[in-house]
Amino acid sequence: MKFATLPDGGAQGRLMLVSRDLRHAAQASPIAATLLDALERWDEVATGLQARYDALNAGWLPEAQPFDPSACAAPLPRSPQWCDASAFLNHGRLMEQAFNTPPIPEFDTVPVMYQGASDDFLGPTIDVPMPDEVDGIDFEGEFGVIVASVPMGASVSDAMRRIRLIVQLNDWSLRAFGPREMKTGFGFLQAKPSTSFAAVAVTPDELGEHWRDGRVHLTLDVEWNDRWFGHPHGREMNFGFGELIAHAARTRRLSAGTIVGSGTVSNVSRDAGSACIAERRVIEMIDEGGARTGFMRFGDRVRMTARDDSGQAPFGSIDQRVVRAPSSGAQEPRP
Amino acid sequence: MKFATLPDGGAQGRLMLVSRDLRHAAQASPIAATLLDALERWDEVATGLQARYDALNAGWLPEAQPFDPSACAAPLPRSPQWCDASAFLNHGRLMEQAFNTPPIPEFDTVPVMYQGASDDFLGPTIDVPMPDEVDGIDFEGEFGVIVASVPMGASVSDAMRRIRLIVQLNDWSLRAFGPREMKTGFGFLQAKPSTSFAAVAVTPDELGEHWRDGRVHLTLDVEWNDRWFGHPHGREMNFGFGELIAHAARTRRLSAGTIVGSGTVSNVSRDAGSACIAERRVIEMIDEGGARTGFMRFGDRVRMTARDDSGQAPFGSIDQRVVRAPSSGAQEPRP
Repeated sequence: MKFATLPDGGAQGRLMLVSRDLRHAAQASPIAATLLDALERWDEVATGLQARYDALNAGWLPEAQPFDPSACAAPLPRSPQWCDASAFLNHGRLMEQAFNTPPIPEFDTVPVMYQGASDDFLGPTIDVPMPDEVDGIDFEGEFGVIVASVPMGASVSDAMRRIRLIVQLNDWSLRAFGPREMKTGFGFLQAKPSTSFAAVAVTPDELGEHWRDGRVHLTLDVEWNDRWFGHPHGREMNFGFGELIAHAARTRRLSAGTIVGSGTVSNVSRDAGSACIAERRVIEMIDEGGARTGFMRFGDRVRMTARDDSGQAPFGSIDQRVVRAPSSGAQEPRP
Repeated sequence: MKFATLPDGGAQGRLMLVSRDLRHAAQASPIAATLLDALERWDEVATGLQARYDALNAGWLPEAQPFDPSACAAPLPRSPQWCDASAFLNHGRLMEQAFNTPPIPEFDTVPVMYQGASDDFLGPTIDVPMPDEVDGIDFEGEFGVIVASVPMGASVSDAMRRIRLIVQLNDWSLRAFGPREMKTGFGFLQAKPSTSFAAVAVTPDELGEHWRDGRVHLTLDVEWNDRWFGHPHGREMNFGFGELIAHAARTRRLSAGTIVGSGTVSNVSRDAGSACIAERRVIEMIDEGGARTGFMRFGDRVRMTARDDSGQAPFGSIDQRVVRAPSSGAQEPRP
């Protein structure tokens, strides 16, 4: 199944089923009003949703409308919890050089993961407000999974069984804050503004052979201001999502709707390019003796699209512009 | 006003108004069904809630019932966001010695703050499941505030105006994970299981002179297995809550219901004792050459009560027992 969410003024929006070819959509509300509702009652609603999804794909739903990803919110605009790993170790090792930080202990054997804010995720095409260009505005192209409830201490295999949906996301980062926040030991906070998501969340079966070993075997095409920036592949992920979920659940239960991220998709081959500017910059330092590429400016766009070998894009695209945030107090916050 | 939440099987529970003397309670549902609902519509519902609260205090509500804090969930069982600072620098400086970590940069001028999980807060008397005694089970007695929506880049004075409620909490910690997670730079995750809250959240006016300069001027009495452990005072907080909220909102908007914590209440005077075991242990190391006190064992209890000079406890008490978590998969997670 494929899902998207339309904004409706509330925190969770309105759940839509999206056809496999992303051409049509229909409300899921006869069965589940929101994606969080569906995730909390998955065993109860999955059969009904599947039947409605099959009918949508067959062209049997008279209420189906053309699907417009630019009208969508994030699939789960407010999630109970968001834990983002750094599971492509190539990226992490390069970033250690960029930030000149000491080697992370047990980096090869224990996932590193930070807790992010999950109350205010952004849709795929909305302008992204940032306070200042000097903060080092950067993108991070990633994959993620959305889980059913997970008990404390779940095993990797149990964790794998609780994966309900796969998503594609941009973990926006402000590099000027990163090194200081890492040095505090308390982790990222100001360095991580709201995260953006591609419009469509998919069940694992939708990816077919491109979902295996708890990894998304797709290329992530990244373009910055319409120019190629990278196309790293998800298969090089050093920890699978099952291991990441089990890590997150080691000392806590995870509520249904928790999202676990892969960290920046990154490949060892230089030919793959990068899914974030910071990584390109450190590669420039290593290969050319200095960083040439600056961070994003207001008005810049970044587009990210996961694709299979035939060019199919199961999640749609993230395609956003960075804009200057209104000064304090002028910006209307969400409820 | 004073509020509490009764569990009802859902994520948010059912909102109650609690009388000033904590003796009676009545449903707030004629006006707001949940505390999150009230916070999101505060300007619309505050007058009605205040009238109902006044009637409850006057004994005019026939539906009022005796208030039973042991039946309560956390006031806000699932919050949009939870950011916990370390704003009592005395504690932070002692902990640096305990963990033998490098000095935190700009510790005196920039708050340190970590992002915590906010989906599964625990009520004041529920047993607290932990996976293993070897994880170094510890408590951290703190104060916190719950805010209305806060725009990105809010000033300290604007942040102060958006404080709606004050709470008392126990930021449960697993010390065996802390040093490794701090060294990764990604911050606490496994080191921070679900946080517990005293039953009653209060509006700032309820504290009278005990709420000033964005600080809670109350003693936090901490007892471990019915023995005095500490009574540090909130006035020594080095950053006020206004500064902490503005720090959290520097690069993001905060949704209504976001909770910001003070970090462990800690006083320079050794006579005040401590609000967490790790701090007592490092004081033992410094003063006596070695840590004598171990961490919590299954079956241990901790009680925390904030009090004014006359012994009044505006939030009630947190009074919990640590128990062994069921092994993987056996524990039923929440939806």
